[in-house]
Amino acid sequence: MDAERNSERHQPIGADELNDVTVIGFDADDTLWESESFFAVTEERLVALLAPWCMSADVSAALIATERANLSHFGYGVKGFTLSMIETAIELTEGAIPSNALAEIIGWGREMMAHPVEVIDGVIEVLDTLGSAFRLVLITKGDLFHQESKVAESGLADRFETVEILSEKDERSYQRVLDRLGVEARQFAMVGNSVRSDIDPVVAIGGNGIHIPHAITWAVEQATGEADAATGWTTLESIRQVPGLLGIS
Amino acid sequence: MDAERNSERHQPIGADELNDVTVIGFDADDTLWESESFFAVTEERLVALLAPWCMSADVSAALIATERANLSHFGYGVKGFTLSMIETAIELTEGAIPSNALAEIIGWGREMMAHPVEVIDGVIEVLDTLGSAFRLVLITKGDLFHQESKVAESGLADRFETVEILSEKDERSYQRVLDRLGVEARQFAMVGNSVRSDIDPVVAIGGNGIHIPHAITWAVEQATGEADAATGWTTLESIRQVPGLLGIS
Repeated sequence: MDAERNSERHQPIGADELNDVTVIGFDADDTLWESESFFAVTEERLVALLAPWCMSADVSAALIATERANLSHFGYGVKGFTLSMIETAIELTEGAIPSNALAEIIGWGREMMAHPVEVIDGVIEVLDTLGSAFRLVLITKGDLFHQESKVAESGLADRFETVEILSEKDERSYQRVLDRLGVEARQFAMVGNSVRSDIDPVVAIGGNGIHIPHAITWAVEQATGEADAATGWTTLESIRQVPGLLGIS
Repeated sequence: MDAERNSERHQPIGADELNDVTVIGFDADDTLWESESFFAVTEERLVALLAPWCMSADVSAALIATERANLSHFGYGVKGFTLSMIETAIELTEGAIPSNALAEIIGWGREMMAHPVEVIDGVIEVLDTLGSAFRLVLITKGDLFHQESKVAESGLADRFETVEILSEKDERSYQRVLDRLGVEARQFAMVGNSVRSDIDPVVAIGGNGIHIPHAITWAVEQATGEADAATGWTTLESIRQVPGLLGIS
């Protein structure tokens, strides 16, 4: 939703800056496979459930406020989202929602956890192309249990040297990953859909960011625009353009 | 609760079997710090909340049944437990529980996530003693976000070469950790309170188990007693006895 703002901040990387790259990190949710769209569909179900009590816009605003407030308590992922939906439903109806309706929300959480992984178009070919010339690592955040399930189900695990599941993607956690991999930041490029999680912290430690916006971006992931103008990152329209950017076709 | 059954299965490790050990793995919850007691206290609150509808024993039985059923959907940890409590409350009251009471349950989940870490007596001294002679690693499972918070808050992180947070502690995940550490199973001893998670899978791949029962064991973690009689593991009463077992005092 903030793709426009993001692309305003786009600063092309010079070809020589990418010459040093030996390791490519890939975000998972909404970079390798669909994720946010399942949250959006579930939010629509919540809006419908609460329609007798309130307007759609109020539900969305209350839900994101509850999610933000719960982030420091529950972290990222479907379970925290499910708890936030329940809390939002109780608050917005001032306790009038029958508890059976809340059981339904827990069922949606289970459905989201069990939802088949939908690998994004072009991902397999791009990984196969890049895998012959670069070390590939998967770097994602959120619920360990759910992310591991998705990695396994995606069938992509073997294409990565390592899978790093972090509780937060910040400068410190990226630096730890690079230390473990034994590479310097300038040798690292991160591919992902979130400027906040995949690009800004990588660029801040001296790495290279390759931003591929996704149709839907969760409000919490939207860049604030308050950060210093970033350099050292570029925006592509599709993951299919990554090999070309790195000089491989 | 199954400490007696566990100690029946106790098979002392010979001193020469432990001679090869260079790496000691420590479980975290209920080995380094208290955990299950907070779940037990919260379960008591649920029992009290549901007292107008049902007997204490029925609540406990229904809750553990829901937890077991949800394990494959939600994995381990406080968020899944909170969702299971909500579901149990709705089921047992056949939807009669007011939704405001369910908001209270979510508040308990937040309290559990934020509960101060209570390091178990003797842990710091034992880690300091062992740290001079062995490589120490922390190997825990459950919610990544919560476990990382607890590791950070415990102040123990620096005493470990690495912290491994797994979604499940099974033979495969232990083998992966050993491969990463570059040690063979016979060089590895695991210290923990759960026969199911800390001992059986380690012994199964050829490692050494040091079982230290905790006063309370979650029903899911209780060994079934159906496994083959294990060898290669021993039961101690306190973590303070670990250095002695390993020939250090």
